[in-house]
Amino acid sequence: MKKVQLNPVGWMSQLSQIEVAQLQDTTNSALYDMFRNCCLAVLNSGVDEDDYETLFAPYDDFDIRLIRRERGVKIELINPPDVAFVDDKLVRGVHEHLFAVLRDLLFMGNKYAFMHKSAPVESADITDMVFDMLRHSQALEGNDELNTIVCWGGHSIKLPEYKYTKEVGYQLGLRDMNICTGCGPGAMKGPMKGAAIGHAKQRYKRGRYIGISEPSIIAAEPPNAIVNELVIMPDIEKRLEAFVRLAHGIVIFPGGVGTAEELLYLLGILMNDRNAQQPFPVILTGPAGSEGYFEAIDEFIGATLGKEAQDKYTIIVDDAVEVARVMGGGLERVKKFREAMGDAYSYNWSLKIEGSFQRPFIPTHDSMRELALHQDQNKASLAVVLRQAFSGIVAGNVKAEGIRQIKEHGPFELTGDPALMARIDELLRSFVEQQRMKLPGSEYTPCYTINRD
Amino acid sequence: MKKVQLNPVGWMSQLSQIEVAQLQDTTNSALYDMFRNCCLAVLNSGVDEDDYETLFAPYDDFDIRLIRRERGVKIELINPPDVAFVDDKLVRGVHEHLFAVLRDLLFMGNKYAFMHKSAPVESADITDMVFDMLRHSQALEGNDELNTIVCWGGHSIKLPEYKYTKEVGYQLGLRDMNICTGCGPGAMKGPMKGAAIGHAKQRYKRGRYIGISEPSIIAAEPPNAIVNELVIMPDIEKRLEAFVRLAHGIVIFPGGVGTAEELLYLLGILMNDRNAQQPFPVILTGPAGSEGYFEAIDEFIGATLGKEAQDKYTIIVDDAVEVARVMGGGLERVKKFREAMGDAYSYNWSLKIEGSFQRPFIPTHDSMRELALHQDQNKASLAVVLRQAFSGIVAGNVKAEGIRQIKEHGPFELTGDPALMARIDELLRSFVEQQRMKLPGSEYTPCYTINRD
Amino acid sequence: MKKVQLNPVGWMSQLSQIEVAQLQDTTNSALYDMFRNCCLAVLNSGVDEDDYETLFAPYDDFDIRLIRRERGVKIELINPPDVAFVDDKLVRGVHEHLFAVLRDLLFMGNKYAFMHKSAPVESADITDMVFDMLRHSQALEGNDELNTIVCWGGHSIKLPEYKYTKEVGYQLGLRDMNICTGCGPGAMKGPMKGAAIGHAKQRYKRGRYIGISEPSIIAAEPPNAIVNELVIMPDIEKRLEAFVRLAHGIVIFPGGVGTAEELLYLLGILMNDRNAQQPFPVILTGPAGSEGYFEAIDEFIGATLGKEAQDKYTIIVDDAVEVARVMGGGLERVKKFREAMGDAYSYNWSLKIEGSFQRPFIPTHDSMRELALHQDQNKASLAVVLRQAFSGIVAGNVKAEGIRQIKEHGPFELTGDPALMARIDELLRSFVEQQRMKLPGSEYTPCYTINRD
Amino acid sequence: MKKVQLNPVGWMSQLSQIEVAQLQDTTNSALYDMFRNCCLAVLNSGVDEDDYETLFAPYDDFDIRLIRRERGVKIELINPPDVAFVDDKLVRGVHEHLFAVLRDLLFMGNKYAFMHKSAPVESADITDMVFDMLRHSQALEGNDELNTIVCWGGHSIKLPEYKYTKEVGYQLGLRDMNICTGCGPGAMKGPMKGAAIGHAKQRYKRGRYIGISEPSIIAAEPPNAIVNELVIMPDIEKRLEAFVRLAHGIVIFPGGVGTAEELLYLLGILMNDRNAQQPFPVILTGPAGSEGYFEAIDEFIGATLGKEAQDKYTIIVDDAVEVARVMGGGLERVKKFREAMGDAYSYNWSLKIEGSFQRPFIPTHDSMRELALHQDQNKASLAVVLRQAFSGIVAGNVKAEGIRQIKEHGPFELTGDPALMARIDELLRSFVEQQRMKLPGSEYTPCYTINRD
Repeated sequence: MKKVQLNPVGWMSQLSQIEVAQLQDTTNSALYDMFRNCCLAVLNSGVDEDDYETLFAPYDDFDIRLIRRERGVKIELINPPDVAFVDDKLVRGVHEHLFAVLRDLLFMGNKYAFMHKSAPVESADITDMVFDMLRHSQALEGNDELNTIVCWGGHSIKLPEYKYTKEVGYQLGLRDMNICTGCGPGAMKGPMKGAAIGHAKQRYKRGRYIGISEPSIIAAEPPNAIVNELVIMPDIEKRLEAFVRLAHGIVIFPGGVGTAEELLYLLGILMNDRNAQQPFPVILTGPAGSEGYFEAIDEFIGATLGKEAQDKYTIIVDDAVEVARVMGGGLERVKKFREAMGDAYSYNWSLKIEGSFQRPFIPTHDSMRELALHQDQNKASLAVVLRQAFSGIVAGNVKAEGIRQIKEHGPFELTGDPALMARIDELLRSFVEQQRMKLPGSEYTPCYTINRD
Repeated sequence: MKKVQLNPVGWMSQLSQIEVAQLQDTTNSALYDMFRNCCLAVLNSGVDEDDYETLFAPYDDFDIRLIRRERGVKIELINPPDVAFVDDKLVRGVHEHLFAVLRDLLFMGNKYAFMHKSAPVESADITDMVFDMLRHSQALEGNDELNTIVCWGGHSIKLPEYKYTKEVGYQLGLRDMNICTGCGPGAMKGPMKGAAIGHAKQRYKRGRYIGISEPSIIAAEPPNAIVNELVIMPDIEKRLEAFVRLAHGIVIFPGGVGTAEELLYLLGILMNDRNAQQPFPVILTGPAGSEGYFEAIDEFIGATLGKEAQDKYTIIVDDAVEVARVMGGGLERVKKFREAMGDAYSYNWSLKIEGSFQRPFIPTHDSMRELALHQDQNKASLAVVLRQAFSGIVAGNVKAEGIRQIKEHGPFELTGDPALMARIDELLRSFVEQQRMKLPGSEYTPCYTINRD
Repeated sequence: MKKVQLNPVGWMSQLSQIEVAQLQDTTNSALYDMFRNCCLAVLNSGVDEDDYETLFAPYDDFDIRLIRRERGVKIELINPPDVAFVDDKLVRGVHEHLFAVLRDLLFMGNKYAFMHKSAPVESADITDMVFDMLRHSQALEGNDELNTIVCWGGHSIKLPEYKYTKEVGYQLGLRDMNICTGCGPGAMKGPMKGAAIGHAKQRYKRGRYIGISEPSIIAAEPPNAIVNELVIMPDIEKRLEAFVRLAHGIVIFPGGVGTAEELLYLLGILMNDRNAQQPFPVILTGPAGSEGYFEAIDEFIGATLGKEAQDKYTIIVDDAVEVARVMGGGLERVKKFREAMGDAYSYNWSLKIEGSFQRPFIPTHDSMRELALHQDQNKASLAVVLRQAFSGIVAGNVKAEGIRQIKEHGPFELTGDPALMARIDELLRSFVEQQRMKLPGSEYTPCYTINRD
Repeated sequence: MKKVQLNPVGWMSQLSQIEVAQLQDTTNSALYDMFRNCCLAVLNSGVDEDDYETLFAPYDDFDIRLIRRERGVKIELINPPDVAFVDDKLVRGVHEHLFAVLRDLLFMGNKYAFMHKSAPVESADITDMVFDMLRHSQALEGNDELNTIVCWGGHSIKLPEYKYTKEVGYQLGLRDMNICTGCGPGAMKGPMKGAAIGHAKQRYKRGRYIGISEPSIIAAEPPNAIVNELVIMPDIEKRLEAFVRLAHGIVIFPGGVGTAEELLYLLGILMNDRNAQQPFPVILTGPAGSEGYFEAIDEFIGATLGKEAQDKYTIIVDDAVEVARVMGGGLERVKKFREAMGDAYSYNWSLKIEGSFQRPFIPTHDSMRELALHQDQNKASLAVVLRQAFSGIVAGNVKAEGIRQIKEHGPFELTGDPALMARIDELLRSFVEQQRMKLPGSEYTPCYTINRD
C-alpha cells in the first residue's frame, strides 16, 4: 500500500485547531465522498477522458485521509495514481489543486453547510457565498485588471475547432488577457494553451489559467495541465454565477448541451431589465466549417428567446484576431461602466441574478418531466427552464448520478409545446450528429426523449 | 470642516456586500465609539503623550464615518489631526493602521460579538479567536522563522534605560530578530528603533515591528513611528495571549505596574505543569543603574511565587550583546521543541493557558476589593490575582474608564495578607519613586490604597 | 513608410554617451548589415522557414536606424514585418530580442572588434570574451542551479520526432530543468514547448528558454516563440563554446549535418585528456522509428573516433522519462565535481577547449578542399576536421554566404581516405534520405561532392 | 591570527578569469594600499572618529588578500576589527561595502588606470567614466524617480544642527525622497537617519542611502550605519561630479571648509552659461541659532562670486517642512526640464562641467601657494581657485597625505588680493570659532596661513 503525506499549502496551511477538528469531523460525511472523488479527478489532471467509470475504475483502492497535527492538517493519499507523480514526488500543481479541493469542498462546505438545510438560499446570501469562496481561493486578488476572459465550449470538439480555440487563446494572450474555463479538455484547454504562448511572447508574467469546476462534473472534466488556479463550487448554479461575476468578457466556442446550458443561463441574466445598462462582451466563435453549429444555436435562440437575446452576443467566424479585438473594445466599455458605477473590477456585484437562476436544479425523472417547456411565459422564465432541461441532459450524459438514474429508469422525458419541442429536438440532434455529446470513439445513446403535448 | 476619504487596503479591500452592511450597522454601537477613539489614537501615532485627555481634547470635532460603495467600504475622516498628514496626504502607515483598527474592532468585533454575551468564553474558543485575529492581520504569515521577540517594559522610562532598550533592539536586529511590543513610547519604541538600524546594517528586508494594543490602552500608548504592523485585540487578556502565543522569546525591560502585570501573567502560565517542557526564553534586562528595579521585582517574585517562578527567567544587567546571545540560544531550543512536537512556528498552540488567565478582569472598586490577595493558595491562582491587582492599577493610572472611576469613588482598595500586602506596597512604592507610573513631569497620585487584613 | 521607434530595454537602456556614439559609428560598417539582417530574422520570430531568401524577400524596403538621444539610444524600424506586431504594438518579447541583437552584435562587436584583426585569438581570450558576452546578456545570472540542458537536433524533423522532443522537454521541465537551444524550429523548439508545460505544472516560475544563435544562421533559424532569452554569438565556434560552457548537460535529438557538427565538436573536447575527469552528461535520444539515425551516427563515431568517443554518450530510444532521469543523475555528478573543483555553476571554466576548436573555420571551396580528411591523425584532430567538413556543408545548405558560393562555383569538394570518405558519404546520404537537410517540401540538391584519394 | 574569507557579492561575483588575474596583479601596487585602507575604514563603519591615525592605529596587523578561485575571487581579511562582526559573522552590509571597494578601486581602477598616465583626462571621457562607475555600482538603476537628494554639510556639527539634519531627512523621507551624502557622521548621517524613519512611516520600500566617498577621505569619514549603497570615486573631483550628476536636488547644511568647497564647486558649474536653463534646486538650511553660519557664507559668496551666484540657492532657516516642500517644487521643474530635453532621469548628462572643475587638484605647498586668489578674473575661474584653496585646507585638516605635508613643511600659504584674502580669512576664522574644522574635543591648529599681496 503506497502512502503519501502532503503538507498544507496556501490558505489551508493556516487553520485553527477548531477548524482542523471540524474538517476531521467531515470524514464520514457525504461531503467526504465527494471530496475523495474530486481529489481522484485532480490526481488525474491532464488525462483526456470523460467517462468517470473508466477514469476511476483502476483506483478502487484509492483513499484519502486527513491527518491532524498540532500545527494544522495534512492530507494522506493511499494508492494514488502514478500519473500525478514525477520520480515519486507529487507534481506541485496537483499538490496545490488537492488543497484547493480541501479548501472549497470541506472547509467552505462546513462553513456554508453545503449538504444541509442551513445552506444559503436567499439570492443575496448566495451571491455573498460565491464571493467568499472566490476570495478564499484568491481568485479575486489578481482579478483587478479587467482582463479575465471566460471561455466556454465543448470538451469534445474536432481538431480544427480545438486548434482554433488555441489560436483565439493565443490572440487573447498576446493582448495580456487571462483565461478562465471549466477545467477540462477541448475548448476548456485550448484557449489556455494558446494564451500561455501569447503570454510568453509578451513577457506577461501574471498569466492566469483559472479552472472553475463542481463536484459532479470534475470527474468527467478533470483539470487540464495548464490550469494554475482551481476553484470547486458546490453546484452547477454557483459555478455559473462564479463564471459570470468573475468574467470581464465571455467567448463561447462550439460545444454540446453543456455549452448551450451556459449560453442560456447567460442570456437569461443579460435580458433582465436591471442589467440593460451592463456592457458584457459575449462572442460566439469557431473556425471555418463550424458555421453550421452557430447557425443552429442562433436560430434556436432567435426562435425561443427572440431578437433581444440575439442582440446580446456577436458571432465571429474564423477570425481569431477579430475576436481578440472586439473583446478588447468590449473591455474598454466594461471599464468605463465599472468606474462610473463604483463597482469592483474583481467581482461584478452590480449584475442582477434572479433567484430562479441561482436555485439548484436537481435533475430527476420527475423534475425533468415537470419542466414547463412552453413559450407561453416570459423570456427569462423560458431561459430558466431551457437551461434546466439542458442541464439535465448533461447530467444524463456524463455525471455519475445522472447516468445511474438513466440506467435504472430509462431516458428522461421532456414534454412541452410541440413547436418548442421540435426546436429542442432539432438542436439536440445536431449535437449528436456533430459528435458533441461525448468524446469521439464512443457511440452516443440519448439520455432523453422528446414528447410533444 | 475638513473631510478626507480613504480607500480600503489589505484585507478590508475585499469585503462582501453583507460584510460591508454589517460594518455599517455598527455605526451606533458602543463598539463604534471605541473604534472612533482608537482611530484618533492611531492618527496621533508617534506623539509621546500618555494622558488621553490631553491627547484627545483638541479633537472634539473629530469624527469618522464608514461609506458604503458598490465595491466595498471607505473611511471618511472628519477634522482629523494635522500631524497624520504630509502635504495634505495621509501618511501611508497611518492609513494602513486605520484599516487595521477597522478590521480588528469592527469586522472581527462583529464576527466574535465582542460586546455581547455570545462572545467566546471557553478556553479553546478564545485561543482560536486570538489565532483568527492574528491570521486576519497577517501577523502569522511572516512569523515562521522563529525570530519574533516580544519586548515588554515601561512607557515611561529614564533616558539611560531608553537608550539601553535601543541597544538591545540593535543587537537583536543584527541577529535578524523581529520586535513585537505594546505599540507606545519608551520601552515599546526603543527596541524597534534599535532593531531597525540592526536590520539595515544586515540588509535584513523582512523587518517586522509589530504593535499589539487594545482599545482601553491605545489612547495612552498610541503606535510609535516604527510600528509597521498593528493589531488591536479586544481586551488586555487577549492581548496578553496574543503576545505569548506569537512570541518566540520575551525580553522584559524596566517598567511600572503594567510590566509587572505582564510578567506575572507570563510566570503564571509558565509555572503550569503542562508547560514544564516548553522552552520559553525570558530575559529581564536593563542598563547599569537599573539593578534596583530588578532586585525589587525578583525579590517580590521570589517572596510570592517562589524559586520555581524565578527559574523561568534570566536577569542580565547592562549587556545588550549577552541578551541577544542568550536569546539566540533560547531560540535554538524553541526550534527543537516545536519540531519535536510538530507545533507551528507561527503560533504557539501547545502552550497551555488556563481559563483563569483568559477571562477578562474588569477593574471596579468591587472587583478590586474582592481580590483574594493571600498566600494561602496555589502559586498559579496567586499569579492570577496579583496580575489582576496590577491590571487594575494600570487602569486607574492611564485608562479612561479607570480614571473616571477613581475620580468618582476615590482610590481602589486592595486588601489581603499583611505580609503579602507589605510586599505589594513596597513594590508599588518603588515604582512611584522611580517615576515609572506616569510620564515624567506629572506628579503621581496613587489610584489605590493598601489595606492589610 | 511605416516607422516605429523603440525605447531601449535591459543593459542597452544604460549606455554612456561615448558608447552611444560608438554604436552610431557602426552604421555604415559590415557589422551593421549583419545587425540589420539579424533584426529582420528576429522580427520574423516564430515563422517556420529555413530559406533566408524566401524569408527576407518581402522586406526589401525594411531598414533599421539608431537614434541618439541625450539619454541613450533608440532603435527605429522602417517598414518592419507585420507579424511582429499586435494591434500596431511590437510584441514585447521581440522588442527585447532586438535590443539583445544590438547588445551582442554592435555593442559587444565594438568592444571585441568582431570584424577586425584585433579580435581575440588566444584561447584564454576567446573564453573570456564568450564569458563576457554571456554575462552581459544576463545568461549567467540565472545559471547557478545546475539545471540548464542544452538540446541539439535538426530544425527539420518528422512529426513523431518533433512530438518526442516535446515529450523529453516536458519530462525535463517537470524536473525543474531549463532548456537552451539554437533558437529555431524543430528540435530547437520542441523541448522548449514541452518544458514550458512541465514548468507550469510544477509551478516553476524561473523557466528559461535560452536561444543562442549567430549571424549567419539566425536567418535560417529565427527564434521560436518560446525563446525568452536570446544571445547572438559572433560565429559558430563561439556559439558552440557558449553552449558547452553554459550547459550542465546535453541532449541530442535526431538532426542533420548541423547536429553531427555539434556532436563532433563536443566529443572532440570531451576526449581531451584534461577533461577526462569532467562529468558531462550527454544523451542521444529519439522516438521509436528513429533508431536508424542513431545507429548510423554511432557507427560513424565508432569507426572514426573509436570506442573512447562512444563512451562519452548514452543512447536512449523512445523513453523520455528515462532521458530525464539519467540526466538528473548526471547533474548530481556535475554538482559534486564543480563543488570539489571550486568551479562556478554558471560557467564551466575548467573545461579545456583547444584553440583548434575555437578558431573560426570559414568554409570556401579552398578551405573545404584542403581539409585533412584522413584517419592517420590523432582523434582530436580528426574530430576538428570532421566538424569543419560538416560545418561547411551546413553553410552550403542554409547560410547566405555558403549558398552564394555554391551557386557561383558549384559544390564543395571533400577529399580524403577512401575508407573515411565512404563513411562520410554513407552518413550524408542517410541524412538526405531521411530529409534532414532541409525543411520538407523542397528537393535537396547536395552542396558537396565526395572524392576519395 | 584571525582570518576570515568572504565570498564575492554583487557585480564582483561574476568576474572572468582574466579580470580576476588582473585584480591579483594589483596586489603590490599603490592602488592596493589604498584598497587596504578603504577596506579598513569600511570595517569601521559606524564608528564616529575623524582622526585616521586613531582609527587605524589599533589595526597595524590588519591585512587583506585576494584569493583566486576557479569560479572567481574571494577576499581574505587578516585580523579585522571586531566591531564589524556579530557573533563572529561579518555584518552583511559591511560585506557588501568591502566588495564595493574592490569593485570601485581595484576593478574600475584597472579599467581606467587610476594611477597611470592613461587615465581619462578629456572632459567627456571623465564624464563617461563617472557614469560607468555609477552604472557598475548600480547607483543609476534606482535613480529614475527624480527623488535623489544630495545632502552636504559638516561631519562635525553641534547637536541642534545634527537633530535638524535628521528632521530635514525625515521630512524628505516622508515625501519618498532618497538621500545621498558623503558617507560619514554629522550632516552626512543625520538626513539618512531621518529619512529612514520617514520611509518607514510611508511604507516606502525602496529607500536608498547612498554614500559616495573617495580614498583620501573615507578614513576620516567612514560609512555610517545607514548607508546601504557605497561608491568610492577615485578622487575628490570625480566624487563631486558623481554628486551633481546623480542629484535631482541638493540640500546644504552647516559645515566647514569641506562644505564650502562643495558649494563653490556647485556654484561655479551652475553659473556656466550653458547651464543657465537647468533647474537645479539648491537649499542652504540649518536650525535656529545657525543663522550666523549662513550669513557668513552668503556674504562671502556675494562678495566674491556676486549676486548671480547667490541667485542659485535658497536659504531656509529652521523650517524642515518648508525645505522639503521647496525641494518638492524644484523636483517638478527638474522633471519638466529633463522631459523636454530628453535627458535621462538617472544621470544628468546635459549639465555642462568644464575641465577646470574636473581636473584633479593635488594640494601641495607649491600648488597652494600658486593659487591665483584674486578677483581680477571671471567668476567661474575664481570659483575654481576658491574651491581648490578650500580643498587644500580639508586635506591639511583630515587627510593623511595633507597632514603629513603640514607636519613636515608647516602650514600651507595662501596668497592673493588683500580684499579677497580678508574675506577668506574671515570665513575660515568663523569655521574655527564654530568648531567646524574637527570633531569637538580636539583643539584646532590651522593648517594654513593667509598672506595678502
